[in-house]
Amino acid sequence: MNSVFQVISGSVTAPLGFRASGVHCGIKKAVEDKAEALDLALITSEVEGPIAGMFTTNQVHAAPIKLCLEHIQNRSGQAIVANSGNANACTSKVGNDDAKSMCEQVSKGLGMKSESVFVASTGRIGLPLPMSNIRIGIDQAISKLSSKPHGANAAAKAIMTSDTHPKEFAIEIPFSDFSERHIRIGGIAKGAGMIDPQMTENGRRSRKGNHATMLAFLTTDISIEAGLLQKALSDAVERSFNAATIDGDMSTNDTVLILSNGQAGNPTLQNANSSLYETFCQALFQTCLQLTKMMIRDAEGASRFICVNVFGARTDAEARSAARAVSRSLLVKTSWNGGDPNWGRIVDALGYSSAKIVEEKIDLAYSAHDSSERLYSIRGGAPTNVPFDRLCYEVARSEFDIHIQLNLGKGEAQIYTCDLTEAFVSFNKGDLSNPDSLGG
Amino acid sequence: MNSVFQVISGSVTAPLGFRASGVHCGIKKAVEDKAEALDLALITSEVEGPIAGMFTTNQVHAAPIKLCLEHIQNRSGQAIVANSGNANACTSKVGNDDAKSMCEQVSKGLGMKSESVFVASTGRIGLPLPMSNIRIGIDQAISKLSSKPHGANAAAKAIMTSDTHPKEFAIEIPFSDFSERHIRIGGIAKGAGMIDPQMTENGRRSRKGNHATMLAFLTTDISIEAGLLQKALSDAVERSFNAATIDGDMSTNDTVLILSNGQAGNPTLQNANSSLYETFCQALFQTCLQLTKMMIRDAEGASRFICVNVFGARTDAEARSAARAVSRSLLVKTSWNGGDPNWGRIVDALGYSSAKIVEEKIDLAYSAHDSSERLYSIRGGAPTNVPFDRLCYEVARSEFDIHIQLNLGKGEAQIYTCDLTEAFVSFNKGDLSNPDSLGG
Repeated sequence: MNSVFQVISGSVTAPLGFRASGVHCGIKKAVEDKAEALDLALITSEVEGPIAGMFTTNQVHAAPIKLCLEHIQNRSGQAIVANSGNANACTSKVGNDDAKSMCEQVSKGLGMKSESVFVASTGRIGLPLPMSNIRIGIDQAISKLSSKPHGANAAAKAIMTSDTHPKEFAIEIPFSDFSERHIRIGGIAKGAGMIDPQMTENGRRSRKGNHATMLAFLTTDISIEAGLLQKALSDAVERSFNAATIDGDMSTNDTVLILSNGQAGNPTLQNANSSLYETFCQALFQTCLQLTKMMIRDAEGASRFICVNVFGARTDAEARSAARAVSRSLLVKTSWNGGDPNWGRIVDALGYSSAKIVEEKIDLAYSAHDSSERLYSIRGGAPTNVPFDRLCYEVARSEFDIHIQLNLGKGEAQIYTCDLTEAFVSFNKGDLSNPDSLGG
Repeated sequence: MNSVFQVISGSVTAPLGFRASGVHCGIKKAVEDKAEALDLALITSEVEGPIAGMFTTNQVHAAPIKLCLEHIQNRSGQAIVANSGNANACTSKVGNDDAKSMCEQVSKGLGMKSESVFVASTGRIGLPLPMSNIRIGIDQAISKLSSKPHGANAAAKAIMTSDTHPKEFAIEIPFSDFSERHIRIGGIAKGAGMIDPQMTENGRRSRKGNHATMLAFLTTDISIEAGLLQKALSDAVERSFNAATIDGDMSTNDTVLILSNGQAGNPTLQNANSSLYETFCQALFQTCLQLTKMMIRDAEGASRFICVNVFGARTDAEARSAARAVSRSLLVKTSWNGGDPNWGRIVDALGYSSAKIVEEKIDLAYSAHDSSERLYSIRGGAPTNVPFDRLCYEVARSEFDIHIQLNLGKGEAQIYTCDLTEAFVSFNKGDLSNPDSLGG
């Protein structure tokens, strides 16, 4: 990681001027330890500021996505309210009204414009939101807002669905011309199923294309013009959350939002060529990437974290298509679970991807995650003489990288993924006798 | 099924002039009951005749696919030799030589042209064929050729990999102008993993596009011109094997071949407009469809058979894309396993498919397989008031259909698929201590 910035503790309340909270209001069933069933999160800024967002390109937009896409037209925001346990998707007009009510209650409670409040939901699709619970929850969340780390931690817990632990990250950028001052970025995220995000700023597919509900909420105290903030977020998300797949199912609710409030006191960033903007972009990317890795490591039922790197494709888009085909293949994912270096299944997946492949040109290697050492199982399409047992050792790691060189061009891509386990199936088949087990 | 033709017992030796055999030669490990480990199949015709084929569009072609694509240029064939237990894929030049040796040994042993012999392999990718075993096996298979049903049954067993039982089907078409004479079609097939075939006659993708190793070998005693035979096969496969998905992984070895020998004595079919050709096409489609259904019912670890019907798409291609997205979704497939009518996951998958979808126009219903009764869970994108328990009853069946009406056009498609179970994962993660468990 770049030494210009450094990782700090905390998350969305680490930047100046932000408060957060998380409460239990009964959308998720209460469990013995009430803290484990937090289901409503609130993040607010002292002052309104530029906001940027990325939204699912699923053609079925959940009600909160539709409302966010309206509110973000103003490019200005001050609060995010989110619930877990119910996706408010496929809920018709009542769902749209409910999403709007959530924003209006926050706006009245905190004295801000309703259009400056953004909303997100995650959980089962097709059920109306329990609005009486939510109304109580929002009032409680407002009363519990805190600028301390525990407020951010409660918010991170309140957006969890099948996640086993909250995901938080924060980073600090010192700026040389203002000694002893700094810019901070903080973020929280959740996975851990229906994860194959493919988000764009307008929720429509671009030609670039690529492919949870995954939610990530970011805050920063930088002073920045809204267009530059969106550009920084779009670039960061493309190489982080949009480069993650757990089960190949893109959600109706995927949302990334970043609230900025200018409280760091830097001269407002208005130029993409400034060195501070470049550093900010790198720091924002690292924040998104670290949250992405936390999400994949905590994927439903997963036992291994794998980074699939493709090089030498004709284009970056083809590299991504190849990496995604490998990362989504059930047979590749199950072989990883078994610790079987079944590279034949990987070559098979490359062959049916939409990327151009020439079997005789493929090199394939394994390494520990982020290690520069390479152990080749295929060179020029043919098996190397590396013993099977030695390859098994590579795949037995809990985290490893696969390096696929297609030798056809300069296109590159990285996809972060996981294995497929019996536990994933068991979790997602649910238990009809326990409606809370029936996930999104 | 059309009453013009009728189902008969047997398979590839039911048509006149065909013999078949299946032997154990040690590619698969011998088990106590030797009959369970048959691994080399041979099908031959008394006389050479028109052949047609469909081959995987995976860009990585196994060695036998490459050789079949050469041999089929002559549009004439007399034998098919196939082994299970090893895919002869990603085996470089030695693999090509081995495939050729198999054809040459059959051609010498039976006194036919080497180019009239077709070859197929299925099993693990990336290992060289054990040719000393295969040479012994081919000699044994030649000596055991039989025109009786047991020969065909042994061939059906010898192509099995993870299949739990052999798949055979035969059909008879009486023709009115030749009383007491008939045309027969017989077939054998195998699945049961790496099944998402997308075959074309030249192994290259067409614009039509769509997506095992699945193998199917068909025989018929009709007299027919080779181009018409190919047209009949292409049409039949498109709506049967190519409409099947188990795990979404298209194999490097998918092959369908049909040998014809003219022994039925009908005047050679040369006109696509004749009523006999139309009947033949229907009978061939039924043969392919019944073998497809057997394959899906015996899919690795599967507990349910599901037919996903999409209507009202803008085009047939979009309908197929929508049906395939639903059929390949891990979350939809696991919910089926749990008997959870989680239609929200179905709508989610429709939303990320490449088919145009308008949430507010979607109707979604359940029925028993091939039943005309419909139970709607969604109309116009909104949940109906059918109770959750009633929907659970529909999804609790071992075979059911899903009917998705997009209300945007006249495009239609049917995809045959199955649920995703812990048993699938357990089987495919393999057991490193038992190399025979490490599948293709």
